[in-house]
Amino acid sequence: MKIGVLGAGQLGRMLALAGYPLDMTFSFYDTSGAPSAGLGKIYSDPANTQAELEAFLAEVDVVTYEFEHLPLSLTQAIESKKPLHPSSESIRVCQNRAEEKKLFGELGIPTPAYRIAESAAELEAAARELGCPVVAKSNTEGYDGKGQAVLRTPEEAQSAWDSIRHPKLVVESFVNFSRELSIIAVRSVNGEIAIYPMAENNHQGGILRYSIAPAPRLDAAKETLARDYIHRLIERLGHVGVLTLELFETEDGLLANEMAPRVHNSGHWTQNGSPTSQFENHLRAIAGLPLGDCSAYRPTCMINLIGQTGKKEDILELPYTHLHLYGKEERPGRKVGHINILADSYEELAERVKACATRIPGIAPFIASINQD
Amino acid sequence: MKIGVLGAGQLGRMLALAGYPLDMTFSFYDTSGAPSAGLGKIYSDPANTQAELEAFLAEVDVVTYEFEHLPLSLTQAIESKKPLHPSSESIRVCQNRAEEKKLFGELGIPTPAYRIAESAAELEAAARELGCPVVAKSNTEGYDGKGQAVLRTPEEAQSAWDSIRHPKLVVESFVNFSRELSIIAVRSVNGEIAIYPMAENNHQGGILRYSIAPAPRLDAAKETLARDYIHRLIERLGHVGVLTLELFETEDGLLANEMAPRVHNSGHWTQNGSPTSQFENHLRAIAGLPLGDCSAYRPTCMINLIGQTGKKEDILELPYTHLHLYGKEERPGRKVGHINILADSYEELAERVKACATRIPGIAPFIASINQD
Repeated sequence: MKIGVLGAGQLGRMLALAGYPLDMTFSFYDTSGAPSAGLGKIYSDPANTQAELEAFLAEVDVVTYEFEHLPLSLTQAIESKKPLHPSSESIRVCQNRAEEKKLFGELGIPTPAYRIAESAAELEAAARELGCPVVAKSNTEGYDGKGQAVLRTPEEAQSAWDSIRHPKLVVESFVNFSRELSIIAVRSVNGEIAIYPMAENNHQGGILRYSIAPAPRLDAAKETLARDYIHRLIERLGHVGVLTLELFETEDGLLANEMAPRVHNSGHWTQNGSPTSQFENHLRAIAGLPLGDCSAYRPTCMINLIGQTGKKEDILELPYTHLHLYGKEERPGRKVGHINILADSYEELAERVKACATRIPGIAPFIASINQD
Repeated sequence: MKIGVLGAGQLGRMLALAGYPLDMTFSFYDTSGAPSAGLGKIYSDPANTQAELEAFLAEVDVVTYEFEHLPLSLTQAIESKKPLHPSSESIRVCQNRAEEKKLFGELGIPTPAYRIAESAAELEAAARELGCPVVAKSNTEGYDGKGQAVLRTPEEAQSAWDSIRHPKLVVESFVNFSRELSIIAVRSVNGEIAIYPMAENNHQGGILRYSIAPAPRLDAAKETLARDYIHRLIERLGHVGVLTLELFETEDGLLANEMAPRVHNSGHWTQNGSPTSQFENHLRAIAGLPLGDCSAYRPTCMINLIGQTGKKEDILELPYTHLHLYGKEERPGRKVGHINILADSYEELAERVKACATRIPGIAPFIASINQD
């Protein structure tokens, strides 16, 4: 089976690495100017985007993507020619915070209180109604903390509006959460659904830095609830492939933050920590193959390498590290690789992660619930 | 680092899959006419082998190979231009049964009794001296049972000679072994050595069909001895990369059969059954990186898919299968993929392997020491 991927970054690369053993081949369409996947034919000429797209589509059996901020006109045009999984409907909802929140509400999935603001004045009013602090987020195109601002007072509305520079914002009550969790599910074209254990996510500078799965000290009832939420979402969307839901854990329970219709950074632990990686399961799902076992072997931590990879030798010297580099040029704030670490217990995992982090340039100390005794 | 691989079959492909996450890229030189690796640039024009070789060498930092039956003139010419790991010396010894046996003898590694025969008459004499049955094997170029014949009486010498069609044979006493074992070691350019647990190998039609690792019911003293043997070999050869030694387990102890200077079919279990696959460790070794953990997670069985892959769905339906297909055309006797299965115990492993084998076309029943109660 010939898989076409919209985008040619690390997610596309890791899809390809997982797919070749299933006798799949890969082509990438990415005219952004910086393809890095390096594992298949890349259609990337920015001067001939339409011709490149047609050649790409002629080459493949099924299309998927590594990035949901795609024009719907593009994805719908693709769907008229080749199967696209997940569909435009998943993209439409997941690329738009207001649509996402609406769907969460319809399905009875709690979220932080929010308002929509289409001007600085509306932003100020929303901040007053919700009570500061609030977080304003661009309705579309935001990721890794980009397109966001925190308002400590309603009077900061104009400067926040000016900094985000987007015609429509979603304004949310600031949630006093104890941690961020994510849950990843996968649904195949045949309707089969499988769900991974939840991960605990720790960010630095707005970018995911550590993910631990299964999330330590997680109440079983909360896990059941989160599984139920994502089950409702994936069924309602008729979603085919991996779907990721981010949640805040608060004193009042779980609140949905946002979702992504694709393999997700918080699921990279599955490459070494689960019998079936999220990448393999995404491909099985879109190819109509049976889904694989989503259980976790042992407590696993994923550490992102951001901006620079450091010295490979320093990481590989530690006998418990699994290094995944993306072949990307180093640049501040850019995800250039990750490390997976397994251990027999969370205590051992914390020790290993701390030891590994001392070898990673520019990383802040490991802060996670397993490390707060 | 740019890795060049001589050969572009499944071993080269699996090296590439293991190497991309270490930020390596791959080129292949294979003018045999059937490259299948599919993961990098392939230099394969049979009409321009020299030009292709030069372009290939200009492209890469270091050269390795997936097949040791290479002309020494070729490998020495390569060594004059780029580092070749393992070296021509490893190839020279490992591609030649007589040289191999001589080295085993020098290092005090026991082998079956043997003679060299360079004519049908010498073969007949060897058969009389050793006592039939004997196994005659072409001195070079044999693999997967090719170039071999069993003589039940000395009188069969002429027909055996005619069938093997090779100017020099190694004639061995027929060994009444209880099983074949293999051990895989890896040595880096820095001299670091790591060794995997031994595997038990079961053949069908002269081709490896099942490998189980760690080899069940293995006497610890025998494992220690085998580790010592391969340690001597890898040091003496100054070998860089993976080295595989096949051994017979007999009532009198372990007897060395043959070795291969490369990643080996009996090490494919390491892809899912060990923290570091043999492919990754081979690459770490030739790139001068620290070697990875060679331990086994749990009892693991590798099942070869030979001639045909069967239906992917049938295999993937079983939640404990890891499928590795090679993207090769199906053809009788050809290795087209393998499946790795892990389990918590050998008993569970035997059950799983038996269940899986019912879904593999053309496979004979699972016969292994864990299945003989």
